[in-house]
Amino acid sequence: MKKSKKEKEFNISKEKDFSNWFSDIISKAELADMRYNVKGFIVFQPWSVLAMEKMYDYMEKTLQRKGHNPYWFPTVIPEKNFKIEGEHVKGFSPDVFWVTHGGKTKLQGKLALRPTSETAFYQMFSLWIRSWKDLPFKTYQRANVFRYETKATRPFLRSREFYWIEGHCAHESEENAMKQVREDMDTTKEVLHDIFGLPFIFFERPSWDKFPGAYRTFAADVLNPDGKLVQQPSTHLLNQDFSKGFNVKYEDKNGKEKPCWLTCYGPAISRIFASVIITHGDDKGLRLPWKISPIQTVIVPIGLSKEAEKLKKEINEQGIRCEIDNSDRSPGEKFNYWELKGVPIRIEIGKKELKEKKLTIYRRDLNKKEKIKMSALGKYLEKIGEEVDKNLIKQADGLFKGRIENVSNKEDLKKVIEAGKIARCGFCSLDKKGEKCAEIVEKKINAEVRGKRLDEKAKKIEKCIICGKKAEEIAYIARAY
Amino acid sequence: MKKSKKEKEFNISKEKDFSNWFSDIISKAELADMRYNVKGFIVFQPWSVLAMEKMYDYMEKTLQRKGHNPYWFPTVIPEKNFKIEGEHVKGFSPDVFWVTHGGKTKLQGKLALRPTSETAFYQMFSLWIRSWKDLPFKTYQRANVFRYETKATRPFLRSREFYWIEGHCAHESEENAMKQVREDMDTTKEVLHDIFGLPFIFFERPSWDKFPGAYRTFAADVLNPDGKLVQQPSTHLLNQDFSKGFNVKYEDKNGKEKPCWLTCYGPAISRIFASVIITHGDDKGLRLPWKISPIQTVIVPIGLSKEAEKLKKEINEQGIRCEIDNSDRSPGEKFNYWELKGVPIRIEIGKKELKEKKLTIYRRDLNKKEKIKMSALGKYLEKIGEEVDKNLIKQADGLFKGRIENVSNKEDLKKVIEAGKIARCGFCSLDKKGEKCAEIVEKKINAEVRGKRLDEKAKKIEKCIICGKKAEEIAYIARAY
Repeated sequence: MKKSKKEKEFNISKEKDFSNWFSDIISKAELADMRYNVKGFIVFQPWSVLAMEKMYDYMEKTLQRKGHNPYWFPTVIPEKNFKIEGEHVKGFSPDVFWVTHGGKTKLQGKLALRPTSETAFYQMFSLWIRSWKDLPFKTYQRANVFRYETKATRPFLRSREFYWIEGHCAHESEENAMKQVREDMDTTKEVLHDIFGLPFIFFERPSWDKFPGAYRTFAADVLNPDGKLVQQPSTHLLNQDFSKGFNVKYEDKNGKEKPCWLTCYGPAISRIFASVIITHGDDKGLRLPWKISPIQTVIVPIGLSKEAEKLKKEINEQGIRCEIDNSDRSPGEKFNYWELKGVPIRIEIGKKELKEKKLTIYRRDLNKKEKIKMSALGKYLEKIGEEVDKNLIKQADGLFKGRIENVSNKEDLKKVIEAGKIARCGFCSLDKKGEKCAEIVEKKINAEVRGKRLDEKAKKIEKCIICGKKAEEIAYIARAY
Repeated sequence: MKKSKKEKEFNISKEKDFSNWFSDIISKAELADMRYNVKGFIVFQPWSVLAMEKMYDYMEKTLQRKGHNPYWFPTVIPEKNFKIEGEHVKGFSPDVFWVTHGGKTKLQGKLALRPTSETAFYQMFSLWIRSWKDLPFKTYQRANVFRYETKATRPFLRSREFYWIEGHCAHESEENAMKQVREDMDTTKEVLHDIFGLPFIFFERPSWDKFPGAYRTFAADVLNPDGKLVQQPSTHLLNQDFSKGFNVKYEDKNGKEKPCWLTCYGPAISRIFASVIITHGDDKGLRLPWKISPIQTVIVPIGLSKEAEKLKKEINEQGIRCEIDNSDRSPGEKFNYWELKGVPIRIEIGKKELKEKKLTIYRRDLNKKEKIKMSALGKYLEKIGEEVDKNLIKQADGLFKGRIENVSNKEDLKKVIEAGKIARCGFCSLDKKGEKCAEIVEKKINAEVRGKRLDEKAKKIEKCIICGKKAEEIAYIARAY
């Protein structure tokens, strides 16, 4: 790993100055370079690419284990495919980058740079799916997608090109499709929470906030320290207009032809990495989960390079990603640098350590030093990864604790939102007829109705926090990106 | 792995009917679907994606081990970047897909879909590289690239979108840059030959066949059974016009500012997979090297599903990718199917096997059955991967054997080329002044001057096979794609 010049200590308060903290950590930890000369497009640098490659790997292995097969679809989609499903074209048209020429030749039809690939996958589904025996038909692809964002872009959180996985599946019935939606939610928990350490809440979005072309939309919201929610993986049960439009049908057991039920799932790896940065990072820099950190253990030798080499070899043989910092920086600068980079474990080895036969270990998850007998290092490292990750998850899980508050009147709603919390309250309807109340939330409270929890129902006595009519739902309201 | 309907036996002669063999194997083994509705763009299917992901992995790990750091650059490059290096723009302009609109808005400047990313990387190099201490600066990215091909496209071999790795490096001197070129050649050998089992010859290309913007171009040629060469990874020492144009300079040890020497390396994974298909495949279908086969061992149970499950578990625990074929096809159909898919080892387990305590093993590399004691299976499988791969390499290495012939007159040259061989001969010059003779080779012999070998020199007495003048070089002439 090439080291850049002398690093100054990173020291910005994440809680008090979140926006600067986030921009600064991205440039100081060399995660992405914003100086590329196309607006909204950035260069992802080695430290984030290596971590995101590991994140891809965990997500892909989980999808494959659950029976999804990987594809690589073309990046370009003909305009005519887009026009097949009305809501989809309406929702995505303003966001599409168009390819119009090849060399000096004007193309016969415009090509979209995929903003998402439903309209590419489903035309092929129609060729591949014949009978109920082919169902469920479960696919995914790892891909970069493009959106001509008109909102301000922020690295990792919202760029004009981002890196994601899109899962597309076809099912026999609405019921089976909903099973897939629940499976996608489980996958989100298994990977985002249990591996990357990110707490979130899954909401079913209100009808006015659905994915264009979806019948029902579900999305995981992660909470930022500034009290705003970030949408992470979403999973959608699509309108059957898609399967009808693209002719994705199957012959059921009785030989009757039926349109499939389609679902799609979209974990955006580069965006999830934003939540990894934000959720685990502290005022010294990143804190990366053991499983995705490009380097898991860094050795800072204080004089003793031969001993460090030996140590590194032993640690590598344990299957742990370990590097030595042999740069010409001072030990103190090295400590700061690797704390900024978020490496979980740092080992210091100098004459003192050698004499005592004890190594000094710095744990980034706890920001504290401990002494470990040299002879016990192997055993220590064997368990430390799991301990570090458990600890990060535990700290992160605290994020939602006390951040959800029940409210029953507009004044309390306002107070809760202004305190950076999530309000839980009765709401007239998350269907069209509730849209007016949602607009009032947006205008008067500067917040959003994020939706409802899948298995939660309103009690009979509950009333809408805005209009006071009978509440059909328990809704969650918060600020969001 | 979802199985498609009943498969007929694949049986086409690779030697006699190569072109049909190649198209057929791609559709029958479900490697790619050509029915996507944009010309020249195809859908890569699970079996090839899984193999290519493994190929990426081997190539990336090798590059990382040699000090290359991974980046993800934007897919789009502003037109103005392209115009900086004259030869580059001239060479690539006809091939570029242009993005001109975002939504309904015309973009301020056209954006190229990267056909290759020199003009994206080097503008960032100019921001990142300051001093000789930063050199060599070694990078790469895994990326999909786009070329508006006007020649006929062929799946994997030449598509309008393909999957590659591009390595970009900056060096202090021409000498160090040439060391990088040699390192790239070694990498090609280590990965393409030693892991994927592909024999090739590295040639330095004639000046008229260089990469646009290169000072020297080197490329690995693989030989197809039809006697045509396929260009695989190439590595280029670039014109300093690039570093001067993009302002990629460094301060040397004496504080003097100098332009860097740039090199780039381009292994196209989807194209290399074409050579894997072609080199190892036979009349029954694919034969995949053990290391990259998505499934390494397939179990075909003849009745005994419980025993098969137990066996699979044991084999998986050995770290081997093993699946059971529980489809409703007959054993014979299953045999054909997995031979077509190229799975290295098939295990048959039925009542007979159970009684004899011996398993029937089918080796795809040898197309022959052997009996293995059940108790010895673990040991057998431990070694079989290496044996299979060695055997495939050995068979493949035979490809070049006797395929290079020395020739010293035009008649022999013609005969050798028509026999699908590579001619080795004296050639006046591989610089501009030899271009006329190369044109004669092209027009009269319907072949190409592919270049010279890096460390081979012409003897004094050698004469150019075309013009009869003194030969400066020993050149290699063959047909190519």
